[in-house]
Amino acid sequence: AAADQAGSIKASGPLSTVVILIAMQTEALPLVSKFQLSEDADPPFPKGVPWVRYYGIYEGLHINIIWFGKDSVLGVDNVGTVSASLVTYASILAFKPDLIINAGTAGGFKVKSRIIIELEEQAEARKPESASTLSVFSLGKQATCYAKGASIADVYLVSDVAFHDRRIPIPVFDQYGVGARKAFSTPNLSRELNLKVGKLSTGDSLDMSPHDEAAIMTNNAVVKDMEGAAVAYVADLFTVPAIFLKAVTDVVDGDKPTAEEFLENLVAVTAALDQAVSKVLGFLPGKCLSDL
Amino acid sequence: AAADQAGSIKASGPLSTVVILIAMQTEALPLVSKFQLSEDADPPFPKGVPWVRYYGIYEGLHINIIWFGKDSVLGVDNVGTVSASLVTYASILAFKPDLIINAGTAGGFKVKSRIIIELEEQAEARKPESASTLSVFSLGKQATCYAKGASIADVYLVSDVAFHDRRIPIPVFDQYGVGARKAFSTPNLSRELNLKVGKLSTGDSLDMSPHDEAAIMTNNAVVKDMEGAAVAYVADLFTVPAIFLKAVTDVVDGDKPTAEEFLENLVAVTAALDQAVSKVLGFLPGKCLSDL
Repeated sequence: AAADQAGSIKASGPLSTVVILIAMQTEALPLVSKFQLSEDADPPFPKGVPWVRYYGIYEGLHINIIWFGKDSVLGVDNVGTVSASLVTYASILAFKPDLIINAGTAGGFKVKSRIIIELEEQAEARKPESASTLSVFSLGKQATCYAKGASIADVYLVSDVAFHDRRIPIPVFDQYGVGARKAFSTPNLSRELNLKVGKLSTGDSLDMSPHDEAAIMTNNAVVKDMEGAAVAYVADLFTVPAIFLKAVTDVVDGDKPTAEEFLENLVAVTAALDQAVSKVLGFLPGKCLSDL
Repeated sequence: AAADQAGSIKASGPLSTVVILIAMQTEALPLVSKFQLSEDADPPFPKGVPWVRYYGIYEGLHINIIWFGKDSVLGVDNVGTVSASLVTYASILAFKPDLIINAGTAGGFKVKSRIIIELEEQAEARKPESASTLSVFSLGKQATCYAKGASIADVYLVSDVAFHDRRIPIPVFDQYGVGARKAFSTPNLSRELNLKVGKLSTGDSLDMSPHDEAAIMTNNAVVKDMEGAAVAYVADLFTVPAIFLKAVTDVVDGDKPTAEEFLENLVAVTAALDQAVSKVLGFLPGKCLSDL
């Protein structure tokens, strides 16, 4: 084939090149500044695409931050799975990274799921006969859920990704639609950074319909974003390891409307995200994939 | 930039290269056979991607059918917007087509929308006071709807595309999510082929949630697929003209479950789709874009 060969997992040797995929400018710029990256005036992408590359070397590690850019007509950031898949594809071909990091903001779940609420209501209704058993069970589950529940500005290192808005109710196609994948396993990085670990569910809507909610619960996700599972799909095509850092801007199952809470918290939460990405970048130089 | 320059609309000259994007093998193979296309054993795509190229020359026109291939793990066709955007991107870079044709099956709407049903129910309930007025209005709207309503095996030439499952309730982002675009205008082709013309709405689910339905109605769509708006987005990035042929396998607002009806009709409807694509390919040789 005439086209580039993409990277695949290297057996050994320290990481050389990292690609950090970031959908929104607000999320990307503090990192660009912190790592003193330069904007590439002539990035190795085809003419016409809006993606922006910032690059530099940090302790021997080649860093490429690819921001998805702005829609040429509407002027908003190119969020969502279509842009995410295209940017991942083009970045793998252009930079042959040893590791992809998808960093971004996300909705989080506290998680007080409907199941818990129903159990509580049942317990309330059935008093006094069965309340004690149900309460114990209910509180037990709640405790578990709250223990891994998300709060504003939490940053998650993602263990697994899946889609929640690709329902194809035909055998096997249904699994294809969900597209569940594991993130690259990084036990040492996880221990070192002391980040929360949880599952991510991806969809192209900022809000959450009842169908989405059911699928997110089935995916057992603690965070919800608009890019992760698409990045994972493309990275998987080329067997490039990918990890995901997601900072919680809004509590989906909380009281405030998502869009409002998202905009309110975006800048502040981005600081937490950038701190986490910085810590990861601080950990990587000199490390092999198997050290992560 | 090191990467390829993509095509843009040529001022004149007959069409040289056409790319036909088809998600499912069942849809692609009859055309491969009819136009005696060869499978490319070493297609100009990166190693790792599952996309299959069939190519040949028909009356001087270079034809490339790109089938999205099968998922390497699950073995099902790579349907949906993520694959559609990647295949469109890679095909534009590899073949610099003068025209993209996205052909596939779709769900159709009769269209007896909820609004009409409600009007009818209101008319029924309010008899005899206001029934006549409402009935006239109701029947008037119905007549319009039925006139452009879809039946099994209808093939639509698409006028406009949009997404119905990318809800981002933030000003301007909302429009980005919907991603409404016009298909390349082909008045002569449309007249010559005598195809129905209508709007297409795209989403990653085969079924339709109430949120999807509301968005499809807002998009004023007669057909619903899983790829079109993503193909249009990428074609638009590179200003490559794109047209869409969609054959109705199931009536979404009909009585049967979508998945069942889809599978029942897939092969038969594919024959109608292939006939329409063949007619289009018969019309193109020697024509300029401005002749379409």
